[in-house]
Amino acid sequence: MLSAKNKTRPGRDKTLADIVLVDPLPRTLDLIMDPPTRARFERLGELVISEDRPMPDETVERLLPDTVLVIGQTALPKARLDRAPKLRAIFNVETNFLPNIDYAACQSRGIWVLSPASAFAAPVAEAALGMAIDLARGITTADRAMRAGTEAYGLAGNTETFRFAGSTVGLIGFGDLGREFRRLIMPFDNKVLVHDPWLPDEIIRRHHAEPVGLDDLLRRARVVLIFATVTSDNQGFLGAREFALIQPGSAVLLMSRAGVVDFPAFLDAVRRGHIRAATDVFPEEPVPADDPVRRIPGLLLSAHRTGGTEDALHAVGRMTVADAELILRGLPPQLCRRADPGIAERLRSKPIAIT
Amino acid sequence: MLSAKNKTRPGRDKTLADIVLVDPLPRTLDLIMDPPTRARFERLGELVISEDRPMPDETVERLLPDTVLVIGQTALPKARLDRAPKLRAIFNVETNFLPNIDYAACQSRGIWVLSPASAFAAPVAEAALGMAIDLARGITTADRAMRAGTEAYGLAGNTETFRFAGSTVGLIGFGDLGREFRRLIMPFDNKVLVHDPWLPDEIIRRHHAEPVGLDDLLRRARVVLIFATVTSDNQGFLGAREFALIQPGSAVLLMSRAGVVDFPAFLDAVRRGHIRAATDVFPEEPVPADDPVRRIPGLLLSAHRTGGTEDALHAVGRMTVADAELILRGLPPQLCRRADPGIAERLRSKPIAIT
Amino acid sequence: MLSAKNKTRPGRDKTLADIVLVDPLPRTLDLIMDPPTRARFERLGELVISEDRPMPDETVERLLPDTVLVIGQTALPKARLDRAPKLRAIFNVETNFLPNIDYAACQSRGIWVLSPASAFAAPVAEAALGMAIDLARGITTADRAMRAGTEAYGLAGNTETFRFAGSTVGLIGFGDLGREFRRLIMPFDNKVLVHDPWLPDEIIRRHHAEPVGLDDLLRRARVVLIFATVTSDNQGFLGAREFALIQPGSAVLLMSRAGVVDFPAFLDAVRRGHIRAATDVFPEEPVPADDPVRRIPGLLLSAHRTGGTEDALHAVGRMTVADAELILRGLPPQLCRRADPGIAERLRSKPIAIT
Amino acid sequence: MLSAKNKTRPGRDKTLADIVLVDPLPRTLDLIMDPPTRARFERLGELVISEDRPMPDETVERLLPDTVLVIGQTALPKARLDRAPKLRAIFNVETNFLPNIDYAACQSRGIWVLSPASAFAAPVAEAALGMAIDLARGITTADRAMRAGTEAYGLAGNTETFRFAGSTVGLIGFGDLGREFRRLIMPFDNKVLVHDPWLPDEIIRRHHAEPVGLDDLLRRARVVLIFATVTSDNQGFLGAREFALIQPGSAVLLMSRAGVVDFPAFLDAVRRGHIRAATDVFPEEPVPADDPVRRIPGLLLSAHRTGGTEDALHAVGRMTVADAELILRGLPPQLCRRADPGIAERLRSKPIAIT
Repeated sequence: MLSAKNKTRPGRDKTLADIVLVDPLPRTLDLIMDPPTRARFERLGELVISEDRPMPDETVERLLPDTVLVIGQTALPKARLDRAPKLRAIFNVETNFLPNIDYAACQSRGIWVLSPASAFAAPVAEAALGMAIDLARGITTADRAMRAGTEAYGLAGNTETFRFAGSTVGLIGFGDLGREFRRLIMPFDNKVLVHDPWLPDEIIRRHHAEPVGLDDLLRRARVVLIFATVTSDNQGFLGAREFALIQPGSAVLLMSRAGVVDFPAFLDAVRRGHIRAATDVFPEEPVPADDPVRRIPGLLLSAHRTGGTEDALHAVGRMTVADAELILRGLPPQLCRRADPGIAERLRSKPIAIT
Repeated sequence: MLSAKNKTRPGRDKTLADIVLVDPLPRTLDLIMDPPTRARFERLGELVISEDRPMPDETVERLLPDTVLVIGQTALPKARLDRAPKLRAIFNVETNFLPNIDYAACQSRGIWVLSPASAFAAPVAEAALGMAIDLARGITTADRAMRAGTEAYGLAGNTETFRFAGSTVGLIGFGDLGREFRRLIMPFDNKVLVHDPWLPDEIIRRHHAEPVGLDDLLRRARVVLIFATVTSDNQGFLGAREFALIQPGSAVLLMSRAGVVDFPAFLDAVRRGHIRAATDVFPEEPVPADDPVRRIPGLLLSAHRTGGTEDALHAVGRMTVADAELILRGLPPQLCRRADPGIAERLRSKPIAIT
Repeated sequence: MLSAKNKTRPGRDKTLADIVLVDPLPRTLDLIMDPPTRARFERLGELVISEDRPMPDETVERLLPDTVLVIGQTALPKARLDRAPKLRAIFNVETNFLPNIDYAACQSRGIWVLSPASAFAAPVAEAALGMAIDLARGITTADRAMRAGTEAYGLAGNTETFRFAGSTVGLIGFGDLGREFRRLIMPFDNKVLVHDPWLPDEIIRRHHAEPVGLDDLLRRARVVLIFATVTSDNQGFLGAREFALIQPGSAVLLMSRAGVVDFPAFLDAVRRGHIRAATDVFPEEPVPADDPVRRIPGLLLSAHRTGGTEDALHAVGRMTVADAELILRGLPPQLCRRADPGIAERLRSKPIAIT
Repeated sequence: MLSAKNKTRPGRDKTLADIVLVDPLPRTLDLIMDPPTRARFERLGELVISEDRPMPDETVERLLPDTVLVIGQTALPKARLDRAPKLRAIFNVETNFLPNIDYAACQSRGIWVLSPASAFAAPVAEAALGMAIDLARGITTADRAMRAGTEAYGLAGNTETFRFAGSTVGLIGFGDLGREFRRLIMPFDNKVLVHDPWLPDEIIRRHHAEPVGLDDLLRRARVVLIFATVTSDNQGFLGAREFALIQPGSAVLLMSRAGVVDFPAFLDAVRRGHIRAATDVFPEEPVPADDPVRRIPGLLLSAHRTGGTEDALHAVGRMTVADAELILRGLPPQLCRRADPGIAERLRSKPIAIT
């Protein structure tokens, strides 16, 4: 269960070994590292790996005095940090900051707390664009119609469609995912509205987008993409009132976390035909077998799968290793997101149960 | 049925009237012109319009001596051209050059024969990108799985998917549609291969693509887009042999004309699971109610509807009017495609039966 | 002086030889073709080349019956065209259509008259951007100041500069050169105004520019680029009245032909400090040694050299050969500009004296 | 000399006032804030401003207990930080981190130390592109030749030039400036090499550039841009050996700090005609009146003025205010650079003497 690598690196006294504590569940190293990345990883220090179960407390306690890097979701309250004088960085490879770390204590000690969360931005943004075009142009709907023998050809097949190109697009949340999506749609010449209360207008304008209030976005956008993270402040902030502000026939895509919407109100707006929608996330996952969500006609369903691609998981490992290399050279990380105190505590993502 | 506009424009002698002969079926003016375009159109000359039936021969014959523009698909053999000394341009607004015009005679008289065919490139390219991402990422398939209760989450839901970004893309045919598609996918950083025997390599390279032979394209591309026009030379040029060259699991999208593929061989490659595919065109349209094509699992079906959007039809009118304005000022057209003799005769598109 | 290549190609009877008549002065083949292009060129037919003097009339007359392509500026009035039944295309490699061809007769015979003029767009646009940034940011001026010991540092060195990025840019003329310049400045996020009376607004808008009248452009643009061709209609159309409309301190770049401006009025506006300017063209070239234009302080001088780069000349040859290959295959040319009747006659470029 | 604003904001007890300590020399508020930014700034707290001299120590000491923000270059050793319990952030608006702050103490207290340094990236990158095209295409040189009556026309005027488009470009240093430059040259289709030992290869590749070692870059690039910051490690790292590696006739632009090059070796390479070059920085500024650098022919001179534009200075203020607003709302800054401990200490920029 527990393996130690590199024990015999020449010129290194065992008592001086720099430990890399690897506790990555629910990820495993094979999942997040391709062979070249794994090779780079093994050169970082003495790896101690627990992959079939979370690292036992006694192991963690024993290793802390020599640990320079933690790769995983190990609990690190102040008492443990006090026992880890050589610790330089903690990488959350499940990519959701959890409340099991004393972030303020890390900050005061200069310990980086990092997450390669942006690894998932590219595959999710790509799928979001596919789904947005699908909703605008009626792709899945037209396929179902043709299978049912009810298809209409040419212009008659476009009575309820609109062009994605040129439509006003509203992005709720403008982190890595929102920016990647904005980049992908540059050739489509959309007017892009962004609502993100954590960002200054300057940042939004730099990405050729207009910073707007939430209601303004909902009233103006023909395609609304929900990319916001769940925090203690914004749970269910998109409810019946907000969906009613959206223009009838608009497309709404829920790509980040189910918790930011009032899910029944969301489904109701779809069922009534007020909006057409796609969702990659659900309040309960796996979705119960008899959940009526499975049978709503105007809803494009995706089983929390747009981010879970092999390339994204490999990027998790590659970003982790690259930043760890920098940190061990005394340089700041460049690829992972930093757990800014004050932000990390607000995040309310549930740990993932399924990779 | 027949209406003449602008008859009384002041300062114009009726006998000198410049006739614009409008014979647009299967299109109608309402279909292809928004009100501002229609207003510009009416300023071009004396409009004589036949929209509920093709313009009767006797009307055509009577108008020819004063006709400066033909808007529509009126037959114009040499004998008629001989009787139309003022004729400056013929606009095919159905957007397929037909064999009912003497193209060489037009050329020798300096009569432009034009078609605003590129109006359809933008909506078809947009839908093609939506469908390409759909096939790569399994969007429609995942929706069906979730409706059937057989969905898989996260990485498990991606065992048969690949990222569109970064995949090698092969375009067969690189006219307006191919170039618009290439433009749309710029942010995805694909390697793009182009096969188009009518184009010099220089043009293809300018669009950041690699000119290749057909077999090379089929062997290397993970996403193959068939954008080629049917000509007398290339009917069914993509058959069993060609589909066999494609890597298993690749995506193939047929977006131009059914005639360029051996359709049964195409369907067979899909049925066997060798490729996943989408098609917007069929050998017979409407597709017969009992056609088994409606029930093939790995095929995304679209009832010849990706181009038939309102904005595309309005672009047909706008491009026609803008070029007509230039021609009447003695300038060359800028927006429509020219019927180059030698090319027009090779084209084998069937006239559209359904708009 | 006269050389015939490929005379002995096996399998070709001399009497059936397809002659490629090469009469390229003031260009030479070495100037316009790199070795791979030259090799392709020699495969087109039986080359007969006159490079040290224009091809003698008697040679031309003798070759016409078997000539399929003319590469050069040979006079081709109707009488000669009548004697050239196999002629398919004429390539003007000096890249200015001259009045020594009967364009209408070519059109009625289906003979392409072509010019690879766009070969020069890329180097001229690149230089124009360098010069525009130079004028906006005072680069050459600051270099001169530092050599004179009168430089100012930091903000004090920028009292008369402005950022090119974000400035309103006006393009007068929007052919190949204007479009290439527009493409190059995309990352600078300028508002771009275009005045081109030969183009429909639709084309201009497609390039993310606003079609405007000339006076409107002059009043609004902070950087004005003169890219217009001289025609019978527009000689000297930019005069004292027009320069007075431009905002004081704006930058004006004359990149196409001196004939489109009233040159004394242009210099006067610079001398008075009303505008800062750059010019690549002059009414008389070479410029007389004592021409006072050489001593105007606010004028960036360029001796008609922005287009004359080796890569541009090689592109002339490459575009010519590629289009000739297509034409001999019965396909329309794709790279060269066509001499549209009605346009070619209006052009008033002087033949170049210096390459 | 000292002014306090907002003293009477209703509902705020004077003893509880949140002080914004403003000590911006060598900048002044007028220099770095346009009126709308100034208005936002005044809403941040009780401004206490010293602009005609550095804030006197006694004033600083008196204000520290109530200070929430420091805007300026005030010395803040640990003893002062101990007396500033409410301090949330320090903004260096001269935009060079100085050794007068205890960075580690700031980090352990969660005090942001920030600099809006990227404000200068846009104007410097723009000027660098102008200068790079100038060197490649010989723009300033050709202007001088024409003034001297020694100009050459057309191709003869391009014997020593090369196209910037398509040339291999090497960037030494890839922070804000390098990335902005890379963005600006996207339309030129250059092969871009980057050497930056502080960055992982992953970051460089994301910007469509190839990470390379320094020697490799110098050997391969036709245009070399020196964008590196001076640190304790890299002073004079570009010397005679390095300049010798560069291909003859290449262009070298020194845009960041004179300290990174062995300046005499740099000038020698230019004097010998081995490279053509531009420099915006000098070892001593202002440059002495009789410095021979002023007379080197192949060197384009710029008096440390490419960054000192009004818009850049206004961006300094706007970025500062926008990030201060976020920080006072408990959010992390988004626009300014963070003084990562370990980096700030290595920086060796001299404070600016001239704005």
